[in-house]
Formats: sequence, structure tokens, C-alpha cells
Amino acid sequence: MLPVPVLERARDELLEWQGGMSVMEVSHRSKAFIAVARQAEADLRDLLAIPASYKVLFMQGGATAQFSAVPLNLAAADATADYLNTGHWSERTIAEAKRFVRVNVAADEAASRYSTVPAQSSLRLTPGAAYVHYTPNETIHGVEFPYVPDTAGVPLVADMSSTILSRPLDVARFGLIYAGAQKNIGPAGITVVIVHEGLVGRARAGTPLVFDYRAVAEAESMQNTPPTFGWYFAGLVFQWLKREGGLAAMAERNRAKAAMLYSAIDNSSFYVNPVDRECRSWMNVPFRLAKPELEPVFLAEAGAAGLANLAGHRAVGGLRASIYNAMPAEGVKALVDFMREFERRHG
Amino acid sequence: MLPVPVLERARDELLEWQGGMSVMEVSHRSKAFIAVARQAEADLRDLLAIPASYKVLFMQGGATAQFSAVPLNLAAADATADYLNTGHWSERTIAEAKRFVRVNVAADEAASRYSTVPAQSSLRLTPGAAYVHYTPNETIHGVEFPYVPDTAGVPLVADMSSTILSRPLDVARFGLIYAGAQKNIGPAGITVVIVHEGLVGRARAGTPLVFDYRAVAEAESMQNTPPTFGWYFAGLVFQWLKREGGLAAMAERNRAKAAMLYSAIDNSSFYVNPVDRECRSWMNVPFRLAKPELEPVFLAEAGAAGLANLAGHRAVGGLRASIYNAMPAEGVKALVDFMREFERRHG
Repeated sequence: MLPVPVLERARDELLEWQGGMSVMEVSHRSKAFIAVARQAEADLRDLLAIPASYKVLFMQGGATAQFSAVPLNLAAADATADYLNTGHWSERTIAEAKRFVRVNVAADEAASRYSTVPAQSSLRLTPGAAYVHYTPNETIHGVEFPYVPDTAGVPLVADMSSTILSRPLDVARFGLIYAGAQKNIGPAGITVVIVHEGLVGRARAGTPLVFDYRAVAEAESMQNTPPTFGWYFAGLVFQWLKREGGLAAMAERNRAKAAMLYSAIDNSSFYVNPVDRECRSWMNVPFRLAKPELEPVFLAEAGAAGLANLAGHRAVGGLRASIYNAMPAEGVKALVDFMREFERRHG
Repeated sequence: MLPVPVLERARDELLEWQGGMSVMEVSHRSKAFIAVARQAEADLRDLLAIPASYKVLFMQGGATAQFSAVPLNLAAADATADYLNTGHWSERTIAEAKRFVRVNVAADEAASRYSTVPAQSSLRLTPGAAYVHYTPNETIHGVEFPYVPDTAGVPLVADMSSTILSRPLDVARFGLIYAGAQKNIGPAGITVVIVHEGLVGRARAGTPLVFDYRAVAEAESMQNTPPTFGWYFAGLVFQWLKREGGLAAMAERNRAKAAMLYSAIDNSSFYVNPVDRECRSWMNVPFRLAKPELEPVFLAEAGAAGLANLAGHRAVGGLRASIYNAMPAEGVKALVDFMREFERRHG
């Protein structure tokens, strides 16, 4: 979901941008586009209060490309990296990392069917690890870290695809943050990487040029043609977020949206969310019906009522509400109202 | 430059696509988007008459990512690959390839300042090479192969970013064709790879997952979220091309556009194009003024007359007209008229 005012502006400018052609037709090396690109970075730095010692890169390939780029840039082949396994995306990250580095799974929540996150005290971290990787929010299981792990000085790497910009963040706690755009930033196809400058310039031999953080940083993310439309669109989203009050306001709004939905689930024996209350996601709320045979009926009736995209991920089934930044509280209220009405009729 | 009817349709559908949300908000796994993705591939196959033995992949990272992906997928580290060097993009490709494979530069046109292409008979090809790579059109130097090299059975790999879809193509002559979208396909951020199935499944250990042609092919280019808007937009361009008469019609149009512009240059002693007449590009026409000190004046007056993007690439300077598919003959005529008028006033 994308903010309507941003979509409207992109639509209005699609054929004629800044008095000229479409932004999609402008050279990425033109003054006009470079101004857009720099403003987007400045606004993102402002929103997240990113320290000057961090580079902000606009890359391609989604989080999946970073699954490879992180070990290629941050570790030698015989080094050890710690990974916390808290769900589907952690599993995918770990599988790819094993092809490039020795992986120590420093916590594994599979036994809880990914309804928990590990306690800080239970992390089996490797002294001197190249880095520690975790997935702060697992979109499929709806489980989220309520804390930032302490890694005793080892660089912390986070796949923030599904939580970035949902609330304020202490960037200085991290060595590297990456995020595919398609949840809270903009259309799919652009990937934001925020990396401490001390971790830039270490890519191993054989790292593809477009994955090398130093090459990308030195070229200001323009060593080859960047996804100009996505970058422009992300910039519009950053400006929208600032107009809406920034990340403190988003946190307030997202906290309230999530509370409304979890409360509706918990106050009913008809709906079930299996996740530990301490680590429930603000962004993705999976739920089941106590009578699972009614789930297809729920999806069909919800769709007819204009409530789309409520099927759970094919890996786990069930139902799931994604309530990213662009989802207004009214959208969550409409879902909760529908849930109550559905329970009244079928409960 | 993008076709106006395609931009208009994308604008009209930007907030409400197929009666629902924006295409940028639709899941790439939704039936609606999968239908768009499959139709785009079918239309591209139709336009280029791609044999069934070729996979069509929609990737990210631009041609620059393919500079690395090609050797990673097609050659062992100790194998030899032949590269033809005909300009700036060949040079960049070769520099990256050397990091992954033994490169034999089988032809080098640097001595002509990239105003020529090598004759077939002069190619110093390696028997048993992993592949032969060339750049059919060099956008900066405006030099283009008027023939497809014969490689005696060695897979031929081509960076067609700037010529794909400009004319019909005998795909069966190639092992692999790749093209960044931003010239003749759509907005930057999507990369088309057309690869013979016999070359898929050979990626070396350590190839990042998003670069592995087999992984991409098996997931139908959806192992991770693809750039959905770019894919949708490319599909609209393919449909526009079919409505316009397909690639035979585009070839006719592009040939006439190029002839009009080269004729204006050659029939004047005021303008100069340095490229061998046998290998002049249909897509990018670099030119100089006999009085180079007038070039900034030319650019300023052209800009004031609504003729944009005429500066030569910063690597070579001078002037350059890019006349891709979306540039109408009227646009070239307006440029030629302006050139005559400028010569009359300043010649």
C-alpha cells in the first residue's frame, strides 16, 4: 500500500515533470534528477537521524540481493558470522549466507513455530564474529523483536524491509541496515542500504561491482543507471512522512493500529493470534479462525466488502493483515468492524 | 524517451488499476500481476520470435549487473572468454569480466578512437572459449555492428541495451542477450535476459542467488519481489510496439530517422560525424561542429527551441542525438530543421 497523496502527485507528474518530460525519461545524470536523488537521501537522513558516519546507498535486487552482498562485503570466506533465526526470511538469509561464510545460528526459534524471539541472554554469539545478522520483523509469522540485540561491539546487521520508517530508530546501534522498498518506502525495485563507513571498502575479491558497497558509495549510487522512478517515488514518500509528523507520529499511529487489531483478536475466542504478546509485529498480523474451515469464507466475504490482501502467506496459510505506514487507522477499523460482524454471523 | 500513449495509460491507471488499487500496490504473487508478467513475456517472445528453447528472465541491476553475471554463469574461473572491444561499454564490460574469467580481447577498435567495428575476418577468437561477448551498439561513440559475428559454435553473448526491439533479430544466433530497460523497453530498473536453456544451470559456486540464471528461471523471475511497475510498464511498451506494426515497422522507421539525420550531417561541412559509414548507429548519433566553440551555443539554442538531451556523453563531449524507438520521425525532422537554421545563422 502506498500513500494516496504520493500516488496522486506521481500520477499528475507522470507525463510532465518540472515543466518537461516524464521523470522516467530524464537522465539520471541530469541536474534535475540529481537534485531529486540528493533530496531523497537528505530527507531519509533527517527522518532516521542517520549519523554522518553512515553511507546511504540506493541499490537494486531487493533484500535477497543483500543476503549475498552482506557476507561478500563484510566477511572473509573463512570468517564466522552469527545469524538469529526467527522465521521464513531469517531462514532464507541463512541459506544464502552459508554459501559465502561460516554461519553460526546464534538463536533458533523454529521450535516455537516462530511465535517467539530469543532473549538477549540466550544468544550464543561468537566472540570476534564478522557480524551478527537478524530480521527485526518476520512478515510471514508476524513476530518482531521488541529490543535491539547487544552484540558487544560486533557489527549488527538488520533486514529492516518490513519495519523501516515505522518508528524512530537508533541507527548508531547498527553496522548495516538494509530494506527492500516495497513495504514502507515505495514501489518494488529499489533497496536502501545504510552502512557505517567503517564497513565500506572491505568487499572480498569476486564481489560483483553492483554489490560492492565502496563502488556504490563512491559513485553516489549512480555507477549504472539507478531505478530513477523508484528513487523519485521514495523521495515523495519521505516528504509525505515529514509532512505527517515524522517517525514519532508514525510510531504513535502504528502502535494504535496494531493495538486495535490485536485487541479485537484477543477479546474474541473466534480469532487467534499465536505470537507471544511480547514480540507481536506492528506491521503484519497473522491470525486464524478457531474454525479454520471458515477461513475461505472470511476471505471471500472480506474481499466482497473491499478488504483485500488478507490471505496468509502461502508458506503458512491462514489470514494476515499487513498494516504498514500507508494503511490508515480507518482501514484497520474497517477490518475490525468486519471481523466483529463476521463473528456475529458465523460465530 | 517513452511512448506517449504508454505514459498516458500508466498515468490513467496509476491509482486504480483493473478496478482496484495501484499496480505498484498489487502483490507480485497475485493472479492479476502474474497475468501481466506472463503477457509481457509472451508479447516479447512474439515481437522477437524467441524460440521456445530460450528462457526470458526479468532481472534487476541493469546491464552492469550482467557484466558480472555472464562470467559467473557461463564460465569457470580458469576458462577463457573472448570480448570484442568497440567502445566505452565494451571497456566497462571487459574490466568487470577480468575479475571473474580469463579475458581474451579478440578485437580492439581503440586505435580508431572507436569509429569502426572489426571485420569478421579480423576477430582473433579462442577455439573452445566459454563464450564471445560483444556490444552491438556503443551509445557513446555511435558505432554499431552491421553484422552478427560468427563464432563457430561458441555461445555469442550480446549487450543489447541500446538496440533491442529497434529491428527484427535472429535470436537463434545468440547464446545470451541482455538489455537494461531504459532505452527501448521501459523505465530504468528492469533488465531483460534472453538465454538459451543449454546455458542455464551452470553458475559457479559463489554466484549470488539473484544472479543465478537457473534460480531466476525456476522461480519465473519471482524468487524475490520483482520491480512490478517496471515489468508492467515494459508490457505496455511491448503492446504498443505490436500495435505500431512490430519490429519490421520499427526497423523501417528507425532506418529512415537515422538516414534523415546522417544525411543532414553529411550534406554540410558545418557538422561532422566521425564514424565509418558502414557501422553508424541507428540509435545514437554523435556529432561535432566544425567550429567546436559553437557547441555550447548550439546546446543553449536547441534547449530554448525545445530540443533537449543533445549534449554528448561527458566521456567524449560534443553533441549527440539519441533516436530510440519512442522518438518520432517528427522529432528528428525538428532537429534537422534546427540544425539547418543554426548553420544559416552561424555558418
